[in-house]
Parts: sequence; C-alpha cells; structure tokens
Amino acid sequence: MSLDGYIARKDGSIDWLARVEHAGEDYGFQRFFDTVDTLAIGRNTWEVACGFDPWPYQGKRCVVLTHRPLDGHHGEERFAGPVRQLVESLATWGTRHVYVDGGQTVRQFLAAGLIDALTLSIIPIVLGEGIPLFGGELPEKGLVLDETRSWPNGLVQVRYRVAAS
Amino acid sequence: MSLDGYIARKDGSIDWLARVEHAGEDYGFQRFFDTVDTLAIGRNTWEVACGFDPWPYQGKRCVVLTHRPLDGHHGEERFAGPVRQLVESLATWGTRHVYVDGGQTVRQFLAAGLIDALTLSIIPIVLGEGIPLFGGELPEKGLVLDETRSWPNGLVQVRYRVAAS
Repeated sequence: MSLDGYIARKDGSIDWLARVEHAGEDYGFQRFFDTVDTLAIGRNTWEVACGFDPWPYQGKRCVVLTHRPLDGHHGEERFAGPVRQLVESLATWGTRHVYVDGGQTVRQFLAAGLIDALTLSIIPIVLGEGIPLFGGELPEKGLVLDETRSWPNGLVQVRYRVAAS
Repeated sequence: MSLDGYIARKDGSIDWLARVEHAGEDYGFQRFFDTVDTLAIGRNTWEVACGFDPWPYQGKRCVVLTHRPLDGHHGEERFAGPVRQLVESLATWGTRHVYVDGGQTVRQFLAAGLIDALTLSIIPIVLGEGIPLFGGELPEKGLVLDETRSWPNGLVQVRYRVAAS
C-alpha cells in the first residue's frame, strides 16, 4: 500500500508500484507464496491478476469472492457467501494456509477474525487518493509485530500476527 | 498512527497509545524535539497537549492553527490564514525547523508542499475507525525513505524525506 493506505488509484490502476519494481527482487513474495495452498481474492484483485501472463496463481487453488458470474479460465472457483463458511469448507478439503488478497476481501476476513498474519509492503509514496486497504468500521484488533524489513528503494515491509481478541 | 492510519479514536481519545508507553522510552522524540524551534499544530492536537502537565512544548514557539478564539496559557500564538503565509512569516523571524502536528495541519502543509520530512510511528493495532492522518485528496508526493526502526513492543517508526514534486 502507499504510505497513506491506498492499494490502487481510484480507477484501480497500480502503475505507481513501478517505483519499487526491480528485476529479480520480489520482496519475499515467492518464499511466502510457496507456503500457501489456496488463495481467496476479491474480484478486483482477480481482474488485475488476469492481466498478467502467465497466470500468477498457477498450481494454487484460487477462490474468487464475487456476487457476479465469473468467467475464469484458470480453474478459479467462485464464492459468494460469508467468509467464515468459506474457511470452514476449505478446512474440510485439507486447506492449511490461505492467502487472502484484495481490500474488501482482507477487510471481510479481518472483521470475521479469520486473519492470523498480516504482511504489508509500504511503498514510499503519498498517493493522495485511491482505493483504501482499511476503513469501513472494522473491529479493533491488537497486533504483534513479527518482522520489519526495508529495501534501498524505500519499500518497508511489516509482518504482524493478529492477537486473539 | 494505527496500522490502519488513524491518529485518534472518533472521539479524539488516544488511550490505545498506552500499549507502547514505556517508562524511559520516547522513541526518539526528545532528540528530534531538540532540533525544533517552532511548532505548528492543529487545534485538536493543542487541546490534547493542554491536558498534559507540565506543558510539553515549553521553550518552543507554538503556533496553533484555528479559526476559533484561543485561550492559550503557555504563550501560544493563533494563526488562521494559509499555511504558506505562516511559513513565510516564520522565516522572517529566523525560524529554521518547524514541527508540524495534527491530522488536518499535516495535510494542509503536505498539500502546500511545505513538508520536508515525515516521521510516522506505526502502533501495532488495527483501530477499525477513528480520525485519519491522511485522506481528503492530497496531491501525490514521492517519498525517500531515510530510516526505519522497530521496537520489541511492535512500534515501527519510518522516516521519509518528501521528494521535490
């Protein structure tokens, strides 16, 4: 997110992420991604992912949270109910580590108390306006800082565990 | 601020800062404060400061930005015009380093391109709602990360220079 908490411009564009794009540097993403078996992402995040070639979530179960019909070409599944029900259902399938992405989706999971760990990469920019990661009257949650890292280009990554409430 | 970008609860209370209060630890504040000759703070921040005994800004010139009358007992000055005019006026008085605090005031200075450096302490909590530091359609500003520090209790401090726009 930008320092002022936005994950995209108002029109959804993420061109400003280019300031931290460097060949060969993924800010720990692959190492994290390797631990994940399932993705739960919002529709907007899915649409951004569909713009990448190759499909970035290859080899993972991918659930897209949307109320609209889904024209997925990568084996994506669509889910439209309460996120607690999704997590319970995934557990019966042996899912162990779900990667949740997208502003609305992260907020839904946070609100339901279903997030164990939160990793945020803070991009060195004040966007001024855009689509916020937080907001919308979430319940209060204490956090435990696990790790903080920074890179020479100014990206700061913080990783928290969500305290039991 | 909280991880979700709030500087106070909706009612202005900052009780949640208690989770990072430790005797003898000021997170670098005094070292920073010693470099400052003048404060420019918003009225709400001033009201919070008035609740402390002793007055925390002793020995500094203190300008409170407010349109309402000000009943200051510590030599505070009141200012109600454009912040650029304030900075120009302070410069003629030999002011060298102004400490700007308060959500609205920081945003006004940022919008006017009058902030050189930005220090943020991120408290390990998602408040869920409150008074935001950012928001309100600021102009986009690139930042240069100067330093990041973290403390065992989970406070993360980031310091940026504001890039020339």
